[in-house]
Amino acid sequence: MEVCACTEEVEVLVFGSVIVDFVAYAERLPKAGETLHGHKFMTGYGGKGANQCVAAARQGAKTAMIAKLGDDSWGSNYLQQLRKENVNVDFVEQCQGEATGIAQISVADSGENHIIIVVGANNLLSGNDVEKARNLFKTAKILVCQFETPLNATLDALNAFEGISILNAAPALVATPPELIKAATIFCVNETEAALTTGCEAISKLEHAKVGLHKLLEMGAKNVIITLGALGAVYATSADPHKFIHVPVGKVPKVVDTTGAGDAFIGALAYNMARFSSLPWHQLIGAANQVAAYSVQHPGTQASFPTGQVNKGVEYAWKEF
Amino acid sequence: MEVCACTEEVEVLVFGSVIVDFVAYAERLPKAGETLHGHKFMTGYGGKGANQCVAAARQGAKTAMIAKLGDDSWGSNYLQQLRKENVNVDFVEQCQGEATGIAQISVADSGENHIIIVVGANNLLSGNDVEKARNLFKTAKILVCQFETPLNATLDALNAFEGISILNAAPALVATPPELIKAATIFCVNETEAALTTGCEAISKLEHAKVGLHKLLEMGAKNVIITLGALGAVYATSADPHKFIHVPVGKVPKVVDTTGAGDAFIGALAYNMARFSSLPWHQLIGAANQVAAYSVQHPGTQASFPTGQVNKGVEYAWKEF
Repeated sequence: MEVCACTEEVEVLVFGSVIVDFVAYAERLPKAGETLHGHKFMTGYGGKGANQCVAAARQGAKTAMIAKLGDDSWGSNYLQQLRKENVNVDFVEQCQGEATGIAQISVADSGENHIIIVVGANNLLSGNDVEKARNLFKTAKILVCQFETPLNATLDALNAFEGISILNAAPALVATPPELIKAATIFCVNETEAALTTGCEAISKLEHAKVGLHKLLEMGAKNVIITLGALGAVYATSADPHKFIHVPVGKVPKVVDTTGAGDAFIGALAYNMARFSSLPWHQLIGAANQVAAYSVQHPGTQASFPTGQVNKGVEYAWKEF
Repeated sequence: MEVCACTEEVEVLVFGSVIVDFVAYAERLPKAGETLHGHKFMTGYGGKGANQCVAAARQGAKTAMIAKLGDDSWGSNYLQQLRKENVNVDFVEQCQGEATGIAQISVADSGENHIIIVVGANNLLSGNDVEKARNLFKTAKILVCQFETPLNATLDALNAFEGISILNAAPALVATPPELIKAATIFCVNETEAALTTGCEAISKLEHAKVGLHKLLEMGAKNVIITLGALGAVYATSADPHKFIHVPVGKVPKVVDTTGAGDAFIGALAYNMARFSSLPWHQLIGAANQVAAYSVQHPGTQASFPTGQVNKGVEYAWKEF
């Protein structure tokens, strides 16, 4: 059997979603029955899977993606775009008769938004695709998954992988199957997703985050990261379940657009874990914080991701809490 | 100066909007801050101007459009589409560096929707375009305008035209400039738009519609048509301001999608006025009612417009009220 040489050196393998974003900007969000005039419209490349893959690739990781696109022009354009970002797309398939996944996003001047996602071809990602890409699964250093593609396929991917896996459990589920939580090396969510997943009250302070970490370890997670926006991120591990680490992030001069910041964090985390596996957790998380902080200071989703490392070689502050 | 031969035979000239529709269908409309999964996404050709032009062309009218598109792929595709619909596009311009107008439409299973329109290139339609197409303005039989392009350009178009003009004052304005109302031969709106334009209470019964007709005549309209959905349409003229005519429409077996029904009505009205100018008003309106009724029984906007006349040669019922 012929094995593609390039698969042997993949650092970050992303198994997940590819979605085209249609974003309309208006003074406010429209009400039912209402037609509003907006002031801008953009189409963009999105989907948590592809975003995270591109974020890792921009950092310098050798990346590959396993995903499904439609056989429409959006699918062809997106494939081209992933190639441009140096993502290995040997296992990104354009499915006949299917529509590429889309997100219809409305953004108010206040920053408030609402979104309708129609996943289309993403729904066809299956355990079969794990099987087909078994060489990649054997050789890649880090696997990254999310919840925008079928859960059983995600579980198959996590179970098939022997390296370090990161599960970004987003969009969050109210009843996340425990086997998924247990299958990943790292379970990573933001504060809202952590609250939804655990059934905890809204997480807005570090004290709440501690409850969230604790709860997720109880639910079977091996390592948990909760990102907290301007507060940075917190971490706990089942190996030492009473130690809670907080890695703050420096204040950014001006928040321009938070879209994609979470994906920038995951992509950078994956890159750093692949490339600098001996670094302590607070260094890995601190570096990912920096990339997310860069993202919020720039407009767009993938457009806001930095190229190359941010603050290379810095010692990041951290504390137990 | 060279004159394009085809302009000499144009029956329906539409000066107005061209918009690409992005429609996401979900169980319900999303709330602020919410991401919902939808079940279908479609892109379609829309914009009241282009819809009305296509509706008239499908009836069999020789049509021409004066409009602005962006120099993006949407603009090129739309131009192609108008040609396919046999619309003369000599004066449909793709404007350099501009985006084609779009409408982001969210539709709930209940039929409720909300819409954000970003007009883009449509905003560049101006009195200059009336001047450039002066041969068309001299020779066309019917002019059709709407309110999705700049109002001063619409006024220029109405003033430059010597034939019969139809102003579809939609989307409705709370303060419609009186000179616009006065400039058109026929002022046509639906019940909601009539209420907004006149400041009357919601129009849901014939008695309310009478108040609306009366008010619009008072505001300077020469001839007024208010469409009333399942109730058909009502008509009044300044030449006989105390006579109010109701042209009902037969019950349709099943309403599938009301999108574009108003545009189907306008397009059919324009076609019938161009081709059968000697028919009485109730016959012209009755025929347009039939085309709108056909449209609501079929999905989509332009896709729902019939090809060829509906119920040719029928005598439509009407009564004074």
